[in-house]
Amino acid sequence: MPVVSVNLSDRSYDIALGSGLAPRIAAFVADLAAQKRRAALAVDASFLAAQPDFVRESFGGMPQFVVPSGEGSKSLAILGKLLDFLATEKLARDGVLFACGGGVTGDLAGFAAASYLRGIAFVQVPTTLLAMVDSSVGGKTGINIASGKNLVGAFWQPLAVFADMNALKTLPPREFSAGMGEVIKTGLLADADLFEMLEKLPRLDAASPELADAVSRCCAIKASVVEKDERETAKDGGRALLNLGHTFAHAVENAAGYGVYLHGEAVGLGLFLAARLSEELGLISSSDVSRVRALLLKYDLPVNLCGVTAKPLALAALEDAARHDKKVREGKLRYVVMESLGKAVTRDGVDAALVRKLWREAGAL
Amino acid sequence: MPVVSVNLSDRSYDIALGSGLAPRIAAFVADLAAQKRRAALAVDASFLAAQPDFVRESFGGMPQFVVPSGEGSKSLAILGKLLDFLATEKLARDGVLFACGGGVTGDLAGFAAASYLRGIAFVQVPTTLLAMVDSSVGGKTGINIASGKNLVGAFWQPLAVFADMNALKTLPPREFSAGMGEVIKTGLLADADLFEMLEKLPRLDAASPELADAVSRCCAIKASVVEKDERETAKDGGRALLNLGHTFAHAVENAAGYGVYLHGEAVGLGLFLAARLSEELGLISSSDVSRVRALLLKYDLPVNLCGVTAKPLALAALEDAARHDKKVREGKLRYVVMESLGKAVTRDGVDAALVRKLWREAGAL
Repeated sequence: MPVVSVNLSDRSYDIALGSGLAPRIAAFVADLAAQKRRAALAVDASFLAAQPDFVRESFGGMPQFVVPSGEGSKSLAILGKLLDFLATEKLARDGVLFACGGGVTGDLAGFAAASYLRGIAFVQVPTTLLAMVDSSVGGKTGINIASGKNLVGAFWQPLAVFADMNALKTLPPREFSAGMGEVIKTGLLADADLFEMLEKLPRLDAASPELADAVSRCCAIKASVVEKDERETAKDGGRALLNLGHTFAHAVENAAGYGVYLHGEAVGLGLFLAARLSEELGLISSSDVSRVRALLLKYDLPVNLCGVTAKPLALAALEDAARHDKKVREGKLRYVVMESLGKAVTRDGVDAALVRKLWREAGAL
Repeated sequence: MPVVSVNLSDRSYDIALGSGLAPRIAAFVADLAAQKRRAALAVDASFLAAQPDFVRESFGGMPQFVVPSGEGSKSLAILGKLLDFLATEKLARDGVLFACGGGVTGDLAGFAAASYLRGIAFVQVPTTLLAMVDSSVGGKTGINIASGKNLVGAFWQPLAVFADMNALKTLPPREFSAGMGEVIKTGLLADADLFEMLEKLPRLDAASPELADAVSRCCAIKASVVEKDERETAKDGGRALLNLGHTFAHAVENAAGYGVYLHGEAVGLGLFLAARLSEELGLISSSDVSRVRALLLKYDLPVNLCGVTAKPLALAALEDAARHDKKVREGKLRYVVMESLGKAVTRDGVDAALVRKLWREAGAL
């Protein structure tokens, strides 16, 4: 069973990957109980409804806080309820909060764990592909406020992560595809072999034997990036590279209204635009762009602004949203581009007219 | 002008102390502006009303968030408003939040700074004696939730602290006395010379030339304790020693209802009870206890349960509150006691009957 170690000195931890991890989670829970450490569970409502047996086998009778599904739960209001729950369950400084769900549950519970008693341990049990390869690795936790997404949070590393492919068996196909957007991103960013593997293999699903390996490679790459730049302070490269496609994606999500595009769908489109930008900058070839396009389409991910919304988005809204993206807020428009498929770099001062041309190509009105 | 350095590797900072620091704060603000770092101010409403010139001279036209005075502002609701303010003012990751006020403003703004964009810099300008010697040193930030005080927060060190004795000139006398409770605590905890100095000097006030030195000694002692145990993880001693008198004090505050006793007043009573406990345990003499009592009375601090509330508090309520104190939650009742005036140690397994006797002596019903 693959294990990815995330090495961050005294904040190091392991990501266990495989199928059928419930007994291992239960053993971990029993070990905490033997140490007399109180534990509590934040679990996504949809996952609890879809896989009650997984939750029971993993967590037994642990006190449960059910997180309403959807981005709306990443709010100060739900955070307050979760914090009150932890206090009511009398978790002490050696308490442990388990997060079982997708990115929303993990981000919310992670920030609650970072803040409750100024920081208690938490364990991630991601139940979406996106959470497994992205939000459960790296220690970014957070919630949304009226002014924007993820504007409030903490860097807080988990004590352990258990990524069980069985949890993905009830994931809606659209969400599985969206998760593949981040898997493809990882290949384009730093793992040409992973990208080629995804091109060659038939379309993966939760039952594919190759899935755990693909997820494991994504976790390992993200871990190695995070190890070098835990708090995203590197001037060049570093964690910023993980945002390949994301300046475009955030603009799309923002302009369409959050929740219209799934994050991984917006990332898919963003990857295509980042590939086109890289081509325009003379870094990769048009055949490289075609390969990116083909792999995105294989996973039903969008490569233009038609399809997900009834009408393509307006250019002005997209440009405005890109200007307000957290990543470019320091003033300059910075994009992550590809030097080759499998090698991303940051590029400052990208010509706004070129970006406008790409948005128009994608169908922006 | 005295400066206390707090050495916490890459989180080190200086505390500047003295009278008339507004020009130095203004220079610090100008330096940030020259670096094109956006800054914002969270300022206590009462202080702003009392010393508008100090605020204008120090912070100029910096965007202001006015924090309503009182413990009620340490809430998720006010935190949310402050976070929205930071986003509206477009502070980026290199932004700086100034906190000008007492412990409430510092704790609230510090937690906002720790959480906004997963952490931006903040600068403390404490305007109460209590905040100068206690909450502005050590990096503990936080808010209250329904289940209890300071249950949510972060360890987040400031970029700098400016403690201006002029800020204390408009502090109500009762609050000044309460701050002296923590000053006396510091002497009893680790600085016999400070304790003796306070015994010999006439009663200090904001205009006393010796005040900055007393505050500076308190900051230095707290800094040295925090340097050795930043996150309060030491099994014995460490930051826990700073809680001399606090298990009693928290019980009194809780049983009386928060806000009835000022924190420093409750600490004063707690110090007297900790001295009595130390005497009962054979650690200090009855004449030591008399010295503690005399110094507390010199600063109008309570040494029993009569006076602050119309009726003394009930024994059962005090015992119940002590059991629920965060510091003793792991199960055992742990008290900080004195081996001598100026040397505190932690003591586990203190006999509940002995503590009950002390509460009764203090007038508990």
